[in-house]
Amino acid sequence: MGLASSIVNMDSTHYIKDLTTDNITRNVIAINSQCPEPRFRLLLERLVTYLHDFARETQLTTSEWEATIKFLTEVGDACTEFRSEFVLLSDVLGLSLLMDSINHPRPSSNNELGGSLVPTEGTVLGPFHTHDAAHLAHGGLISHDEDGEPLLVVGTVRDTEGRPIAGAQIDVWENNSHGLYDVQYPDRDAPDGRGILKSDEQGNFFFRAVVPVPYSIPNDGPVGRLLDQLKRHPMRPSHFHFMIFKPGYDRLVTALYRRGDPYERSDAVFGVKESLVVDIGPVGDVEGFSAKYGVSPETKLMRYDFVLMSEKQMRELQEQKAKEAKRT
Amino acid sequence: MGLASSIVNMDSTHYIKDLTTDNITRNVIAINSQCPEPRFRLLLERLVTYLHDFARETQLTTSEWEATIKFLTEVGDACTEFRSEFVLLSDVLGLSLLMDSINHPRPSSNNELGGSLVPTEGTVLGPFHTHDAAHLAHGGLISHDEDGEPLLVVGTVRDTEGRPIAGAQIDVWENNSHGLYDVQYPDRDAPDGRGILKSDEQGNFFFRAVVPVPYSIPNDGPVGRLLDQLKRHPMRPSHFHFMIFKPGYDRLVTALYRRGDPYERSDAVFGVKESLVVDIGPVGDVEGFSAKYGVSPETKLMRYDFVLMSEKQMRELQEQKAKEAKRT
Repeated sequence: MGLASSIVNMDSTHYIKDLTTDNITRNVIAINSQCPEPRFRLLLERLVTYLHDFARETQLTTSEWEATIKFLTEVGDACTEFRSEFVLLSDVLGLSLLMDSINHPRPSSNNELGGSLVPTEGTVLGPFHTHDAAHLAHGGLISHDEDGEPLLVVGTVRDTEGRPIAGAQIDVWENNSHGLYDVQYPDRDAPDGRGILKSDEQGNFFFRAVVPVPYSIPNDGPVGRLLDQLKRHPMRPSHFHFMIFKPGYDRLVTALYRRGDPYERSDAVFGVKESLVVDIGPVGDVEGFSAKYGVSPETKLMRYDFVLMSEKQMRELQEQKAKEAKRT
Repeated sequence: MGLASSIVNMDSTHYIKDLTTDNITRNVIAINSQCPEPRFRLLLERLVTYLHDFARETQLTTSEWEATIKFLTEVGDACTEFRSEFVLLSDVLGLSLLMDSINHPRPSSNNELGGSLVPTEGTVLGPFHTHDAAHLAHGGLISHDEDGEPLLVVGTVRDTEGRPIAGAQIDVWENNSHGLYDVQYPDRDAPDGRGILKSDEQGNFFFRAVVPVPYSIPNDGPVGRLLDQLKRHPMRPSHFHFMIFKPGYDRLVTALYRRGDPYERSDAVFGVKESLVVDIGPVGDVEGFSAKYGVSPETKLMRYDFVLMSEKQMRELQEQKAKEAKRT
């Protein structure tokens, strides 16, 4: 880090006195440099630098600082076992989408990977994934929502060479026709609108669900008030979550978005990508599907072919992107 | 801001799709630019920029992001009516001292103000000021601590021309001989170790107290664990708080530190300034003081001449410093 050496009169216990707007940052970094973990030391160094630069550059006032402390305290108050207001804050500030982009980059062109298929893009995980979903046989129904519009989901899982990935775990979750995830039900006693499948030998899977609807992110807390102040709406377009994993492959956290949704272009948490937008039409439009999957022709159909990157491909791509980030 | 114009296909409802590491920041800023309050819009623009730059530059990992969300949630949990863990976090990151420096700058040389006296430096307010202290007559005792070492405090309040400021309100608070502020007493039913005086016609004041001692900031929560991880101690050197106010003058928030304290050079919250470090010796060392103030010669004495800047002086200095900050 090299900053400690610029401190005047620094001895073994540090010399922290007469700190001003101009010298406080390097001195806080110097005292934090006692930390023996290099990565944590680096994170704190950059955090302190950005935090202080923000205050200096904006000439942040005492009352603005007080308002920020009050806001963070309210965000803390709004957190419960089933609601993380801090995740919501990260979501609406675009940080969650950025985290996915940084940690699960995609090649700018597919030549970089040398495969024939473009890997499926990731998107925000959101706060509604749980670990108690039931395992389903193919064709199983994940929803108990009697008001929901029936949906057949048909998919495949492949690698970038187009080879089927058998035995991938496919974790799916969605909201119901009232715009609620099961953890938002007042009387939740078992999972609903979620399930776990495994791809078959050909990498295929299918199950039954309901058509997801647009909904508001939890909007009655401090993050909702922030959106109000910014004149932003709290809506997310209809989407269906997928988390797909098999050892040796990079875990894919993604979602499919319904084309034509009123919020397709203004998702409150910035998750929509064109490659993840799908048409949802009647099963009857695809020859033979109604009989093959045993559902009525009026049932809606959502199809998608997922493509996973291997862990090795992802590691190499991350290293390359990190190098590019350093150059810019 | 000018950034909105760089968004492709932006219409009246914005176009927020296909966001990546490279384009998310300007798009989040664009959607936030709907905010009608220019100052809040600017703060959000800079916040989003610094937050995203931090994540990109450090290539923040998903597990580090999760650990940060967990830490903030724990900081929220540790907040109570009498303890703000977020203020403590701001303190140990040097932000609180920086806020005082930015908002209450001092001239680099006294020529800038044209006065004959150097204005007293400010320092961190800390979390222990309350609004229920009793008003005291001169000579009154603010402490009920029977184990404390008796202390006589004698001071003056003047402007930068050396003219006495009469009727200034002097709000004082300190810890007891066990290192606790009254709000930390398990059975607090009335204020202790704090009081409010007014300066007399000559700008003088005096009162009786106890000698403050070094103490640990609240260390049993997430901020304490952060200090542990950074190998930093949680101690503050002995000090005595003063908040001095009279209409027309900039409110002075400061503290006096005892010279020779073991933590004088390593204050956990970065508050010590050489101009605020005072010797505390026996009253008997100053001729006539024992009789004049009616205390025993063994009583300890702390003296200080406070100098306030006028509101006008402070406003002019803030404007000048803000200009300098923009130039650098």
